[in-house]
Amino acid sequence: MADKLSIIVVEPDRDRALLIVDSLRAAGDFDIHVIAETTGLARSIRNHNPDMVLIDIANPSRDMMEELTLASGPLERPVAMFVDQTDDSLTRAAIEAGVSAYVVAGMAPDRVKPVLDAAVARFHMFQRMRTELAATKKALEERKVIDRAKGMLMKARGVGEDEAYALLRKAAMDQGKRVADVAQALVSTAGLLG
Amino acid sequence: MADKLSIIVVEPDRDRALLIVDSLRAAGDFDIHVIAETTGLARSIRNHNPDMVLIDIANPSRDMMEELTLASGPLERPVAMFVDQTDDSLTRAAIEAGVSAYVVAGMAPDRVKPVLDAAVARFHMFQRMRTELAATKKALEERKVIDRAKGMLMKARGVGEDEAYALLRKAAMDQGKRVADVAQALVSTAGLLG
Repeated sequence: MADKLSIIVVEPDRDRALLIVDSLRAAGDFDIHVIAETTGLARSIRNHNPDMVLIDIANPSRDMMEELTLASGPLERPVAMFVDQTDDSLTRAAIEAGVSAYVVAGMAPDRVKPVLDAAVARFHMFQRMRTELAATKKALEERKVIDRAKGMLMKARGVGEDEAYALLRKAAMDQGKRVADVAQALVSTAGLLG
Repeated sequence: MADKLSIIVVEPDRDRALLIVDSLRAAGDFDIHVIAETTGLARSIRNHNPDMVLIDIANPSRDMMEELTLASGPLERPVAMFVDQTDDSLTRAAIEAGVSAYVVAGMAPDRVKPVLDAAVARFHMFQRMRTELAATKKALEERKVIDRAKGMLMKARGVGEDEAYALLRKAAMDQGKRVADVAQALVSTAGLLG
């Protein structure tokens, strides 16, 4: 069913995998898929495209941490990671990579669901900020491009700013495009005309 | 000493406070201050201005959560919160309020330090994004204001865009100000001149 949340559980240890699956089943109606083997993990996760990833790894090395976080796609979905041991730099690496919940020595059946909830909340908060940042950067870039295009038109046609903008807007309407896209096309092809 | 990290521990329970202080002492050389009473907490925390806040609260209500997160200033410093029980909406409220680490049923001596490390890493990551977002928004706003000021000058003086910008830049240099600030002053006072 499309409505069920799908979770990939990355767990090399069979007993702990059963424990995690049990606590997830007790907490809700999830579509759960356990992966024991971390070789080819990135591809498995890409293929399944799960709503969440839960990784339980006893004692990760720095390399393993990097591989697991990259493979799990922490910018695309909430990723919760349980470790038994960590140090400051490993913790930082996981969080900088975008892991939404990083839990140390805390793998226990009654904690799986609250940790997933926290991971989801953290992920959405982060995602909102990323979206806002991307939109603001784009608005700034577009404004710069439109300014450059206006300047080019003012010079080439000997018109004022208002008229230059009106020319851009008319071209955009005629082509069914956004003003920023017409401006971008103008700026990037102007060199061609010499 | 100014070099020691200062931590405020908010803990109504005396035994647990001792436990937390012990594990912090074992983990590093911190300047620790325990607050048992949550009345007036916001003021205490403002006065101490600690580097971090650690809150341990058995079973917070929604109101208490709101009060504690507000008082601890989670946008100004890492705040780690330990609770015994939670639900999805309480978890979300804590994380949306900016709590850097939210730990459920996980208060144990050996977990205090890793949780603080995670809170610090999370806080810095979030802070970096907030700073970048604020800077990008400011750049966009300034660009808009400069454009408006340029437009006003072009109209009032009958000059082209380049010349309008040159006028703004000259005024900024003469006054030892930034172009954006001169533009802002022009835009906001222009109405006065009628």
